[in-house]
Amino acid sequence: MTRYKLTIEYDGGAFFGWQRQSGQISVQEIMEAAIRNFCGQDITIFAAGRTDARVHAQGQVAHIDLDRQTMPHEVMSAINAHLRPHLVAVVKAEIVADDFDARRSAKQRHYRYRIVNRRAPLTVDHGRAWLVSVALDTDAMHDAGQLLVGHHDFTSFRASVCQALSPVKTLHRLDVSRRDDEIVIEATARSFLHHQVRNMVGTLKLVGEGNWTSRDVADALAARDRAKGGPTAPPDGLYLMQVDY
Amino acid sequence: MTRYKLTIEYDGGAFFGWQRQSGQISVQEIMEAAIRNFCGQDITIFAAGRTDARVHAQGQVAHIDLDRQTMPHEVMSAINAHLRPHLVAVVKAEIVADDFDARRSAKQRHYRYRIVNRRAPLTVDHGRAWLVSVALDTDAMHDAGQLLVGHHDFTSFRASVCQALSPVKTLHRLDVSRRDDEIVIEATARSFLHHQVRNMVGTLKLVGEGNWTSRDVADALAARDRAKGGPTAPPDGLYLMQVDY
Repeated sequence: MTRYKLTIEYDGGAFFGWQRQSGQISVQEIMEAAIRNFCGQDITIFAAGRTDARVHAQGQVAHIDLDRQTMPHEVMSAINAHLRPHLVAVVKAEIVADDFDARRSAKQRHYRYRIVNRRAPLTVDHGRAWLVSVALDTDAMHDAGQLLVGHHDFTSFRASVCQALSPVKTLHRLDVSRRDDEIVIEATARSFLHHQVRNMVGTLKLVGEGNWTSRDVADALAARDRAKGGPTAPPDGLYLMQVDY
Repeated sequence: MTRYKLTIEYDGGAFFGWQRQSGQISVQEIMEAAIRNFCGQDITIFAAGRTDARVHAQGQVAHIDLDRQTMPHEVMSAINAHLRPHLVAVVKAEIVADDFDARRSAKQRHYRYRIVNRRAPLTVDHGRAWLVSVALDTDAMHDAGQLLVGHHDFTSFRASVCQALSPVKTLHRLDVSRRDDEIVIEATARSFLHHQVRNMVGTLKLVGEGNWTSRDVADALAARDRAKGGPTAPPDGLYLMQVDY
């Protein structure tokens, strides 16, 4: 048995998310079918992040165990050949130690959220960003975001269906920057709660449009009550960029 | 009569290009239909660049004449409302002098060409870049590109169907740069011949993969013979970025 670490990119638009679900098309299902068609093995693939429906990945990481050892670039090419025409691709394959676990071994997860801040509808970015028509103050958003950085109980930013044992997480980075019409929010943590990034982004948007102050964000965090947090930003703008080990 | 300058963005993937053609869906036709539905006028829209099928625009410029003067932001919103669900949007509308001509008044046109240089198939960039699997030497491409900058007879890089009166053009800029897997080629000129950017990119790709030297590019230019130029790069990677007046 040989364990492979796969770095995977996908356009989430056509998928109901990473995780296999009956009656829905998932990235996991597409990957497992491609691997079965390549080597005949009926395997389960384990990923670092269970991205939601319509969320994209530039650097999702997963591991698989194959009976026969094959050169990593051949594993990558063969899986990619069988993934067509789905917009999913293995961008890197590496042989790793048997105790490497894409989910449990992850040290940091990096997410990016893209907002296009303008009145005109999206064209080339359709399905790939959140269109916000009200002018957003990105400096205010960044400043408010710094109140969320650190070790906190993130209950106010946690989906009600979240299955994590604890709502306490350490957020290492929440940077908001703008280039012309595009606002980019970079979030880094060892792990995130379900919908945490999208709920933080939805909250910072309230700050950016002037409806909330930094104080409101601090109060929401302190409340430990999802009803006090901001709304959930749409999935289209979210990208799992990188996982560090 | 009031003349409006419209800055237009589109995902070229669904279109047979800018120009109206019978039996094919064009951006021009979609724009004219949206304007007719908004104000009842049967107008012709004139654009700075007749982009080809599958070529994108972030900053196409066009002009229209409307009988009734309307606030520019209302013209923009109304046209955009009627453009749905097509991936075409007016990102800016301005009232201009009656002698403004989107095509003839243009001082500079800026095109960008995106190459993704890796083995894995495209996912989020599918239809939005050219996938080149062979490792490209971007320094060599940039250096060779500088031989094309200036006032030249570009017959070797001109589509056989090109209708321009003269093959002589002044290329102001042809910069090649790389960031990770992405190679960006920026081309600026007052005007370009048909397929000129794509033919120059196809030629620089031969240099990048080591099949051509800078000397071969100089010889191709001097030959004034399309058969001596490199192949035409696919449309998916090309973007009309900006038009200066």
